[in-house]
Amino acid sequence: MAHIDLGNDLPGIRGPMAFRPETARPLNELAEILLRDDNNTLSRGERELIGGHVSALNDCFFCHNVHHSLAMHYLGDAPLSDKMEALLVIAGKVQQSGKAVTPEDIEKARAQGATDREIHDTVLIAAAFCMYNRYVDGLGTWAPQDPQFYINRAPVRAAEGYIDFDLYK
Amino acid sequence: MAHIDLGNDLPGIRGPMAFRPETARPLNELAEILLRDDNNTLSRGERELIGGHVSALNDCFFCHNVHHSLAMHYLGDAPLSDKMEALLVIAGKVQQSGKAVTPEDIEKARAQGATDREIHDTVLIAAAFCMYNRYVDGLGTWAPQDPQFYINRAPVRAAEGYIDFDLYK
Repeated sequence: MAHIDLGNDLPGIRGPMAFRPETARPLNELAEILLRDDNNTLSRGERELIGGHVSALNDCFFCHNVHHSLAMHYLGDAPLSDKMEALLVIAGKVQQSGKAVTPEDIEKARAQGATDREIHDTVLIAAAFCMYNRYVDGLGTWAPQDPQFYINRAPVRAAEGYIDFDLYK
Repeated sequence: MAHIDLGNDLPGIRGPMAFRPETARPLNELAEILLRDDNNTLSRGERELIGGHVSALNDCFFCHNVHHSLAMHYLGDAPLSDKMEALLVIAGKVQQSGKAVTPEDIEKARAQGATDREIHDTVLIAAAFCMYNRYVDGLGTWAPQDPQFYINRAPVRAAEGYIDFDLYK
């Protein structure tokens, strides 16, 4: 049971989002732009992978399963590029602390072809998941425990995106 | 110098926000609703204090100075309420990890009169600053080093708010 009375039994982040739709709107808009906008040289799968990776490091069961399942939905078992390996290192540093990111981490990503915009988005996606993860777990929300639930949901979430118009009626 | 070429010399979070206005918009809208919206039983000063406290714990010089100066602008030297002391404990736990928040932390805040909505907003403000702080420091942005700069800016920021319309022209 969540730490506060959310007035609904929605899982994970959806519970507090329905409790407080005023803040849910920019939270969802940020996710939509960062993770799904087509004007991006990182694929949707690559961006979801960054979010899932940071969520795993933060030990956030709900977000890890949601976003890792989405990454797998998009990417299948395609091997990671060297550029993505380097960006995931940066994301892991951001999870620890912004100050953990070194000029050498940035140079290694650049050497694998990462652009400034890709490095920017990697840092912001990692930072944003440090927020989403804490929102989900700091309020003690519940999450379905069967990983298959998330695998089954991934194609639906991929089709619908993050803007939940039902919240704002 | 920042880790990437931001194309501007704005300080702190304003640099990457001008570099990527598409993501700046929801980031600013979230700050505006969480920290300034009048429909809130926590005062603007109390909410800025939560943001400044978490920024200090994350050792983010820019955000700490901006938001602590704003809190002092609003609150002056009025003593903290017992409710705010309890909410700051929750915020400090969120800074460590969402999972660090215990039912006892929540009960102590409730015993001092905190509502579910106030606990929700405390958790989300603390979580959001874990994002803003990592965005600022993960990209290696620069910040004015004189604390007086932030004290002087606080009344201007308090008057203007966080929605920077110039970004979206």
